[in-house]
Amino acid sequence: MKACILSIGDELVLGQTLDTNSMWVAQQLTAAGCDVVEHRTVSDDQGSTEDAIRDVASNKLCPELLVITGGLGPTDDDLTRQALAACLNQPLELREDWVEAIRDLFRRRGREMNQKNVIQAMIPRGATMLRNDHGTAAGIRATLSKDGRSVEVFALPGPPSEMKPMFLRDVLPFVKERAGGAVLLQKSLHTFGLGESVLAEMLGDLMSRGRNPSVGTTASNSYVTLRINARYDDAAVAEREVRQTIELCRQRVGDVIFGADEESLADAVAKLLIESRRTVTAAESCTGGLLAKMLTDVAGSSVYFKQGFVTYSNEAKRARLGVSENTINVFGAVSEQTVLEMARHSRRLAGADYSLAISGIAGPGGGSEAKPVGTVCIALAHLPTAPTGKRNADREDEVTAYARTFRFGGDRAGIRDRAAKTALAMLRFRLLDRPLPF
Amino acid sequence: MKACILSIGDELVLGQTLDTNSMWVAQQLTAAGCDVVEHRTVSDDQGSTEDAIRDVASNKLCPELLVITGGLGPTDDDLTRQALAACLNQPLELREDWVEAIRDLFRRRGREMNQKNVIQAMIPRGATMLRNDHGTAAGIRATLSKDGRSVEVFALPGPPSEMKPMFLRDVLPFVKERAGGAVLLQKSLHTFGLGESVLAEMLGDLMSRGRNPSVGTTASNSYVTLRINARYDDAAVAEREVRQTIELCRQRVGDVIFGADEESLADAVAKLLIESRRTVTAAESCTGGLLAKMLTDVAGSSVYFKQGFVTYSNEAKRARLGVSENTINVFGAVSEQTVLEMARHSRRLAGADYSLAISGIAGPGGGSEAKPVGTVCIALAHLPTAPTGKRNADREDEVTAYARTFRFGGDRAGIRDRAAKTALAMLRFRLLDRPLPF
Repeated sequence: MKACILSIGDELVLGQTLDTNSMWVAQQLTAAGCDVVEHRTVSDDQGSTEDAIRDVASNKLCPELLVITGGLGPTDDDLTRQALAACLNQPLELREDWVEAIRDLFRRRGREMNQKNVIQAMIPRGATMLRNDHGTAAGIRATLSKDGRSVEVFALPGPPSEMKPMFLRDVLPFVKERAGGAVLLQKSLHTFGLGESVLAEMLGDLMSRGRNPSVGTTASNSYVTLRINARYDDAAVAEREVRQTIELCRQRVGDVIFGADEESLADAVAKLLIESRRTVTAAESCTGGLLAKMLTDVAGSSVYFKQGFVTYSNEAKRARLGVSENTINVFGAVSEQTVLEMARHSRRLAGADYSLAISGIAGPGGGSEAKPVGTVCIALAHLPTAPTGKRNADREDEVTAYARTFRFGGDRAGIRDRAAKTALAMLRFRLLDRPLPF
Repeated sequence: MKACILSIGDELVLGQTLDTNSMWVAQQLTAAGCDVVEHRTVSDDQGSTEDAIRDVASNKLCPELLVITGGLGPTDDDLTRQALAACLNQPLELREDWVEAIRDLFRRRGREMNQKNVIQAMIPRGATMLRNDHGTAAGIRATLSKDGRSVEVFALPGPPSEMKPMFLRDVLPFVKERAGGAVLLQKSLHTFGLGESVLAEMLGDLMSRGRNPSVGTTASNSYVTLRINARYDDAAVAEREVRQTIELCRQRVGDVIFGADEESLADAVAKLLIESRRTVTAAESCTGGLLAKMLTDVAGSSVYFKQGFVTYSNEAKRARLGVSENTINVFGAVSEQTVLEMARHSRRLAGADYSLAISGIAGPGGGSEAKPVGTVCIALAHLPTAPTGKRNADREDEVTAYARTFRFGGDRAGIRDRAAKTALAMLRFRLLDRPLPF
């Protein structure tokens, strides 16, 4: 089945916002065996939207599916429903049940519904309303017929948090049913710590052009992701081939692959902590809470994460964690000595099995010749690998702690991101009982 | 002048790569006074590319400019030049001078030119070749005439490092000349706390379609952004009109506008803290460090942020902050009573002027009928508004603290984001000495 994606918004056409929705929808459709033939972006203008919708219906490539995102908001510049109604030659009708749902939503949030929101319950006559579990804009599903052909149109809200669940619930089952045979299977394997060129060398001929399944790499958010794409007429063959290629990737690249698809490094660490029933704490200076934030991004993190320490100033490192004034004065706040003390003391205070401590220079200011911006010290303190269940001060002499100094590139946000993820990687390899491979 | 942008590539259509070229080109064109009306993305397929080019030439919106990126590489799936030649009804001709340039480039890199690269010196007869200073693909400029209208087409290579310099050298001067001084000025004003529909009502006729400068709204990352776009023939007039519209927006919407363009809510809070020489700490449960992370996203945050407390478990709230066991038992960890104690104690421990405390249910689990997922309590504790410089325990009786309970929608990440930003907003309005407007 061929599909087109239409995104609507002045901010997209003008280049003020990057169109991540179209990418996500394309990935989903492709993975479901759909053949995405075109993306299009138009402004918040009813005429342009109508033209684009009609154009898709008469496209030479004969798409059978059109997924629209955006333009379902409550304001006067949200005109997707009006444009769709015009293309369908149908009037908009009010769905009283959805007005009630919107009113309820506002009530639950302790507010009064604004009259402007009523428009979000308007649906072209004969179309299907798609309930929105995360916002006030109802989605629309309709069949557009022209010249004896029909295109199934799904209009979804623009905010990703509302669009994605609606797509997965309402669009994906339709696509899967229609797609039948041929598939493009996609799999992402995420790595952290090694550069793209090093990985390319390890992967070797797996990255050859024309290979099926193909293997490519993309660098983003401090990760390098291996992207595997397989095109086969038979889903079972595709799956087997992808499985084999994943196996080959793992053999060549090894443990730096921490997860697949939606998995984050924190997810991988969380899984290992939960399996081994261990807990972790964090003592952070330059990352200022980012590591604790990542550790608690994971639903259910309360099992392994009880507390964290954000000790940004030297005084806080002393007062909260008991880092000795002498250590900071002699070696500096950004030193392996300081992070070792931070890790040891925070572990004991939190009564955790592991502690990660980070201190560094995230910039843009604060760098020196000896410690330029991007210098980050990270320590890991932990009980012996087979804890007896007894923790705290009485076993303090058995605690192991080690530290590493890194030089990260990038801007403030990039350095902080890389520092927090490197700490997670140190813990991950500790939990795997393997040496850090970088 | 109206313009369309066409990007070509399987990786774009399939959603494997984010189309940053189109965004960049759109920004550049818009800033130069061009009216970008459409983006389109098609696969590495000659037929689709031809259709897209012809379509633009006959588009109802009558664009006079088409910027194409991608499909000029040396491999068999790069077909933009063939497609453009077909649309122009002209054969491809070899530009010997460019073959020589490619050969030179390879020689300088110590390699032999691959025969495949010769195709990159093929240009439709009558078209203009655009030299590539950063790669082997020559760009193409041609005039496509159809039905008495003509569209200027620029085909640029896909790699941003080659595309951008060519755009700036060859496309931009053409646009500026045609635009004849016309400019599009853009400004974003960010708000937090009020919904899109409420803001639309406050903005009233400022959002009328056809108004110049235009005012539109977009919701993203818990912010609602007012986007102001002004199109004028004269840059000075555009600036004056944008200034006036900004003033009108501020009059109608007021203090919920916290910043413009690249400014975040944390930036706005940081500015106020630095101006008033105050410090802040954070005591976080469900946000798990996110609020501290936001406060330290700002370069130079060490002036106002010394430390934060991530007290995820009840035990940590007691041990680290001294929240009374009784309070947690009677009112629960997610209660105004608990966050009030968290805020008061953390402020005193950190010796800060302000403290923000957050406790809530970020989900997906942990909700109940009385406290569903999305319930978040936030407290702010602070010294009297005119501190004498003396802080700490001796003035504890003068500390003011208040708490609010919120119900946020969205998923775990969305609830956490909204909670942290609401805390920042509470502090911002406290610093502005105004009541929270939501």
